[in-house]
Amino acid sequence: MSGSVVVAGLGPGDPMLVTPEVQAALDMATDILGYIPYVGRIAPRPGLSLHPSDNREELTRARHALELARQGRHAVIVSSGDPGVFAMASALFEVLDAESSDTMVNIRILPGITAMLAAAARAGAPLGHDFCAINLSDNLKPWSVVEQRLRMAARGDFAMAFYNPRSKSRPHQFERVLEILREECESQRLITFARAVSTPDETLRTVTLEQATPDMADMRTVVIVGNSQTRQVGRWVYTPRSIAAPVAGP
Amino acid sequence: MSGSVVVAGLGPGDPMLVTPEVQAALDMATDILGYIPYVGRIAPRPGLSLHPSDNREELTRARHALELARQGRHAVIVSSGDPGVFAMASALFEVLDAESSDTMVNIRILPGITAMLAAAARAGAPLGHDFCAINLSDNLKPWSVVEQRLRMAARGDFAMAFYNPRSKSRPHQFERVLEILREECESQRLITFARAVSTPDETLRTVTLEQATPDMADMRTVVIVGNSQTRQVGRWVYTPRSIAAPVAGP
Repeated sequence: MSGSVVVAGLGPGDPMLVTPEVQAALDMATDILGYIPYVGRIAPRPGLSLHPSDNREELTRARHALELARQGRHAVIVSSGDPGVFAMASALFEVLDAESSDTMVNIRILPGITAMLAAAARAGAPLGHDFCAINLSDNLKPWSVVEQRLRMAARGDFAMAFYNPRSKSRPHQFERVLEILREECESQRLITFARAVSTPDETLRTVTLEQATPDMADMRTVVIVGNSQTRQVGRWVYTPRSIAAPVAGP
Repeated sequence: MSGSVVVAGLGPGDPMLVTPEVQAALDMATDILGYIPYVGRIAPRPGLSLHPSDNREELTRARHALELARQGRHAVIVSSGDPGVFAMASALFEVLDAESSDTMVNIRILPGITAMLAAAARAGAPLGHDFCAINLSDNLKPWSVVEQRLRMAARGDFAMAFYNPRSKSRPHQFERVLEILREECESQRLITFARAVSTPDETLRTVTLEQATPDMADMRTVVIVGNSQTRQVGRWVYTPRSIAAPVAGP
């Protein structure tokens, strides 16, 4: 019997945001692999093996899932949010590519509600026009790439969503991000700090770029920077669908 | 009794991609509003009024939903994909802002699986690193803004997802998009044309920038352009999580 690897997005936390497609894959699984807190979201049942592993163990986890599939088992790697957005899907294909052996294993990637879209929905519609998603961690890329992308996104007048804005091991980088934004954008630009959206710890705070401070973000926060047109109405933040005049060139 | 307006994302087409949160809102609704084919996805039932309307009727539809809520009804505006990505959420806040009256009406935005993430999952993980979402329609913005954003996205080495790449009323613009990409990117850059993902009409095709032609896209297509690192393994397209060297500046 042939096995399979599914990479499934669990959404940002609320079970009401898990798609029926993902739930069906979880119900069929023989093995669940993933970062410890994500595997912790799966209810144990007879016949299901749980394989929690640490952060930064992505390649080992992907290899393990492929091994299980070759043994005829149905392995589901769980990601928070969407598995294709700064998550496990790329890691799986990196392993498949490096092994250069069997690319015929049965693989499916199942989309999920990614953190920036859950956060945007809570805030209103700050990503209602063209936008960028940027991972601010430099674990896997040079910091200069982050700075270059921030400047290009600002000069294109994109709204921006930042994943992994700040961690204990790199507390100063988000300060640098705010500096770059202040060089490129007007001081009244709106920024929303959305923490742990759809969980009991959810908080939401919108300030101007001028008011923003590094401590407003941590690793559970998605930061959404509006574009030059982004506005507030009542408690909502939104980006209009229209632009009347051309944006300035760089 | 106080009414409500919910703006709900139905995902790209497959009912298995509708979140339980959205399904619960549909089950509680007294009125469903939306573009004709999206309202067509809702099963009729006693006590539920369906209000399909044409494309480009977004502001009228939003005003109607707010009126219904003020009458104590539970209106759900349905969008394809995610309501905050080139969809109805911004239109609702535009109306609320223009009316400058009652911003206290009970509003909820419910996220959904947006087309680019469903398409990316089918292709592999082409959006596995930093990426941009760009609406190629110039119905509501000057074409110069589209060109500027394309160039900034390319110079930041973002992967890109294009919504509304091409329509009968503007067949030549996507040709221009390919020209700009050829000026900014190498000829072997990978492009995926994902049409009607998760519906019976689904097709998926990956070519190089050199091979891409305008007729590969229509209004039901999401186009995903990889970044400079995007690769193929077997039938899959993915963008690695790592970048070894800094990207070139503009």
